[in-house]
Amino acid sequence: MEFIKKPMDIEEESFRIIESEVDPGVYASFSDEERMVVKRVIHTTADFEYASLLRFRHGPIASAKKALGKGVKIYADTNMIKSGVNPRTLKRLGCEIVNFVADEDVIREAKARGITRSMVSMEKAFDDPEVKGYLIGNAPTALFTLTKAIEEGRVRPDFVVAVPVGFVGAAESKEDFSRMDVPSIIVQGRKGGSTVAVACLNAIFYLMDDER
Amino acid sequence: MEFIKKPMDIEEESFRIIESEVDPGVYASFSDEERMVVKRVIHTTADFEYASLLRFRHGPIASAKKALGKGVKIYADTNMIKSGVNPRTLKRLGCEIVNFVADEDVIREAKARGITRSMVSMEKAFDDPEVKGYLIGNAPTALFTLTKAIEEGRVRPDFVVAVPVGFVGAAESKEDFSRMDVPSIIVQGRKGGSTVAVACLNAIFYLMDDER
Repeated sequence: MEFIKKPMDIEEESFRIIESEVDPGVYASFSDEERMVVKRVIHTTADFEYASLLRFRHGPIASAKKALGKGVKIYADTNMIKSGVNPRTLKRLGCEIVNFVADEDVIREAKARGITRSMVSMEKAFDDPEVKGYLIGNAPTALFTLTKAIEEGRVRPDFVVAVPVGFVGAAESKEDFSRMDVPSIIVQGRKGGSTVAVACLNAIFYLMDDER
Repeated sequence: MEFIKKPMDIEEESFRIIESEVDPGVYASFSDEERMVVKRVIHTTADFEYASLLRFRHGPIASAKKALGKGVKIYADTNMIKSGVNPRTLKRLGCEIVNFVADEDVIREAKARGITRSMVSMEKAFDDPEVKGYLIGNAPTALFTLTKAIEEGRVRPDFVVAVPVGFVGAAESKEDFSRMDVPSIIVQGRKGGSTVAVACLNAIFYLMDDER
């Protein structure tokens, strides 16, 4: 069987198919830059429902590009996110993805308090002034914790990708968070996940590459 | 806002919700063990369509459990899969996830031949007799390459999780592969991805844990 072998051809053809099948009314509601994020999320999931679930609040792409251009730490709530983000672009920008769920002190404290490790890990991130962005792809508890810290004035992120997935708390955590006055990309409802979070950040990286 | 904080409670409640909302006719078509995989994939994606896209062919769960119990190498086509699989269970079983896309020789050869790195990386896996399982979550080209190698009698995997995602070649690669007489879990159509591949393997790990 014949198939396209060159990676660049595959991506171009994929984006063409996505544009031809996505709901035109929904697609028209996004800016050019937002469309790049929408397309990459659909490319990653093969799920067109994301076009109607993605929300861009308070200029997240512009704010993220500005922060990332300075070289910052980005907190991610899973190791899968850490592995999925383009390492060459991270290095070039002087950025780093951090996450503390496997740290000994975090594991100990989570067990003692009977709460999730992701929650304790996130509190550790709040104390690091170099952490300017948050990618939450898995744990609703992490997003609830971030929302509370923003409300209390403890942190003021430059950008948040709020896409935890699941049936218990995920939708509620995103609804709660969406009231915050913070630059953010949000997937409404139950859907989301690590690959979606990665797609959002990588899309912003590609936009930055195009401006070089 | 109040929310469930204990990880075990969250998972139990999620599975209860999934069972109450999944199409009962589709769900009844699976064995008890297959249902554990279906539930975990839906838990990971919040996408109930997976119940009607997942196929189990030639006893993949029994064959995977047998192979994994002996301690084998499992090839994965992305680093995200490698990061997502439960490291404690891997270690306990003496299993290892391998992947060669970042190897210098693979990068060089892919460039020279003008084909994807995942394709060259996979050919390298065929030459390693310890590789008994394959998790393909991203690249259709990897699955096409695996299918060809099985047809040619070059490899005979104990289990394959065939869930590449995308718009160019993904559905075709899985349709082609499904004709092979190999124990496999397949997601039909365009959907799939690294988190889906991880969910399948982790579900099998949980089944093995329950038997200890």
